[in-house]
Amino acid sequence: MTAVDWLNDWPALVGTMAFAATAVLGLAPRGIDLLTACVMGVLTAIGGGTLRDLILDQPVTWSRDTDVLWLALIASLITFYAHRFASKRKVYTLLVYLDGLGASLFAIQGADKTWSLGFGLPLAPVMRGIITAIGGGLIRDVLAGRQTLLMKRELYAIPVSVGCIVYAIWLSTVPQQRTTAALVCMGLIVLFRSASIRWGLTVPPWFRLPDAHR
Amino acid sequence: MTAVDWLNDWPALVGTMAFAATAVLGLAPRGIDLLTACVMGVLTAIGGGTLRDLILDQPVTWSRDTDVLWLALIASLITFYAHRFASKRKVYTLLVYLDGLGASLFAIQGADKTWSLGFGLPLAPVMRGIITAIGGGLIRDVLAGRQTLLMKRELYAIPVSVGCIVYAIWLSTVPQQRTTAALVCMGLIVLFRSASIRWGLTVPPWFRLPDAHR
Amino acid sequence: MTAVDWLNDWPALVGTMAFAATAVLGLAPRGIDLLTACVMGVLTAIGGGTLRDLILDQPVTWSRDTDVLWLALIASLITFYAHRFASKRKVYTLLVYLDGLGASLFAIQGADKTWSLGFGLPLAPVMRGIITAIGGGLIRDVLAGRQTLLMKRELYAIPVSVGCIVYAIWLSTVPQQRTTAALVCMGLIVLFRSASIRWGLTVPPWFRLPDAHR
Repeated sequence: MTAVDWLNDWPALVGTMAFAATAVLGLAPRGIDLLTACVMGVLTAIGGGTLRDLILDQPVTWSRDTDVLWLALIASLITFYAHRFASKRKVYTLLVYLDGLGASLFAIQGADKTWSLGFGLPLAPVMRGIITAIGGGLIRDVLAGRQTLLMKRELYAIPVSVGCIVYAIWLSTVPQQRTTAALVCMGLIVLFRSASIRWGLTVPPWFRLPDAHR
Repeated sequence: MTAVDWLNDWPALVGTMAFAATAVLGLAPRGIDLLTACVMGVLTAIGGGTLRDLILDQPVTWSRDTDVLWLALIASLITFYAHRFASKRKVYTLLVYLDGLGASLFAIQGADKTWSLGFGLPLAPVMRGIITAIGGGLIRDVLAGRQTLLMKRELYAIPVSVGCIVYAIWLSTVPQQRTTAALVCMGLIVLFRSASIRWGLTVPPWFRLPDAHR
Repeated sequence: MTAVDWLNDWPALVGTMAFAATAVLGLAPRGIDLLTACVMGVLTAIGGGTLRDLILDQPVTWSRDTDVLWLALIASLITFYAHRFASKRKVYTLLVYLDGLGASLFAIQGADKTWSLGFGLPLAPVMRGIITAIGGGLIRDVLAGRQTLLMKRELYAIPVSVGCIVYAIWLSTVPQQRTTAALVCMGLIVLFRSASIRWGLTVPPWFRLPDAHR
C-alpha cells in the first residue's frame, strides 16, 4: 500500500465532502432547491473523477463503490439545511481550505492514475490531473450559468497545474520516488492555494494578457 | 419481453420526437437556423441516453440502431418548418405533456438499465435515471446559453427524481416486482409532471433556499 | 496508405495549431492568463476528437500519441506571447483560414473513422464528423461563457455539415471512391468556409426562423 493509496482513504473523503459543501454554498444565494443542491453537490464532487475515467476509458469509480456518492449527497444535504451555519465566515473559510486540500489530492491522484497506466507521458498525466481537480467545478459553473474558474482571476487552476507539472517532471527524472513526489506535490498545491486564499492573491498581470473590457 | 422492453417500443418513439420538437420550439424565438434546429433537436433527444451509456461504459445505443437519430431529425425538421403551427398554444401544450411522458420513460429506462447491470445500487440507478431524463435538456440549454432547468423554479427534475427514488426503494425492497415498479413509477412521474404543467406549479419555498437576488 | 491517412500527416498538424491559436486569440481580449490560454487552446484543438472517440468507445487518440497535445500547447504558448503580432489583421485572417482547413479535415476524418467502423450508417458518420469539427469550439465557448457558434449567424457549422452530408451520400452510393470523396468533400468545406470568411457571408434568412428578439 503506497502513500497514494493511503491518501485515498480519509483525505479523499474530506475532499469529496468539502467539494460538495462549497458547491452548495456557492449556489445558495441564488435560491436553489434541495434537489438542485444535491445534484450540484454530487456533480462537483464526482465530476472531475468521472471525466478522467471516461477519457482514460476506465470504469467510472462510483459504478462500483458508491461511498463517494453517498458522502457527497450527505454533505450536500447537511450544507443545504445548515447553510446559515455553513455560510458563517469562519466555517466557510475552513471549507474553502478543505476544498483546496481536496483539489490537491484529486489532482495528484488523477495524474498518478494516468501515470501508472503509462498513457501519454509526461503531458497527459498533467492534463488529467488538472481535469480531475477542476472538472467537477467547471461542470457546476456551466450548469449554473456562472463564470467558470478558468475566466476568473482567482488562483485555483494555477496551483493545481503547478503541482501536476512538478509531479510530472519529478517522475520523469526519478521514477522510483513516486510516494515522496506525490506527497510533496500535494503539499505544494495546498500551500500555494492556501496562501492565495489567505492573502487574496490573484493572477499577476505579467501572467495574463491585458483585459480589453476593463 | 418485460414491460420495460415493450415500453421501449412506441412510448420511446413519442418521447424522442417530443424531446426534439420542444427543443426546437424553445429555441425558435431566438432565430435559429435549420442546422442549429436539427443539431439541438437531436442532441436534446439523444443527449441524456448518450451520457448514461458513456458513464455506464456501454456502447452508445445509436451507434447500432440509428432509428432514434432519424426520428429526432425528422421531428426537428417538421417542427422547424411547421413552427408556426407547433407554436400554437394547444399544440405546444400537447408537446410539453408528451415531453413529460418521454422524460418519465427515459428516467425509468435509465434507472432500470443501470439496475440490471448491478452498478452501485441503489444510488447509482437514481443518478443515471435523472441523467438520462434531463441530460439532453441540460446540454441543449448550455449550448444555447440559456438558464438550465436546474436553476429554474419549474418542476421538471423533481418529478423525475421522485420517480427514480421511489423505483430504487421499491426494487431494493421487492426486487421481483420490476415490471410493476417500472410502470407505477413512470405513471408517478407523468402525473406529477402533468399536474405541474396543468396548474403551473413551481418549487415550493420550503424546498428551497431564500434567493438573495430577488 | 490512403489519402485520408496521408492527410492525417501535415494538414492535421496545421489544423491543430490553427485551432489552438484562434482559440487563444478569440479569448485574448478578455484578459486570460497563460494557463487559461493553454487549457483553452488545447481543449479546442483536441476536444472534438476526444468527444468523437468517447462516443465511438475508441481509445482517445492522445492517450497514445501526445504529439497533438504538444503541438496544441506550443501553438497556444506562441499565440499567448505573440498575441500582438497574431492579432494583426493579416495574420489573424490567415489563422482563420487555416482554422477552416483544420475544421474540414477533422470533419471528414471524424466521418471517415465512423464509416470504417460501420457504426450507424449513414447518419452517425455525419453527426460524428460535425462533432469532431465543432466539438472543441463548443467546449471552449461554453467554458468561456460565450455564445456558442450554434447560436451565431456565422457560417461555420453549416459548411462542415454540408461537407459531411455530401461525403455520406457519396459513400452510400459509390463506397469504393473513399479517397476521392474525402478529398472532394474537404475541398468543398474549405471553399464554402473560405467564401464565407472572404465575403462575410451569414446564414441567409430563408434558412432560419425569424428572430423574436431583434
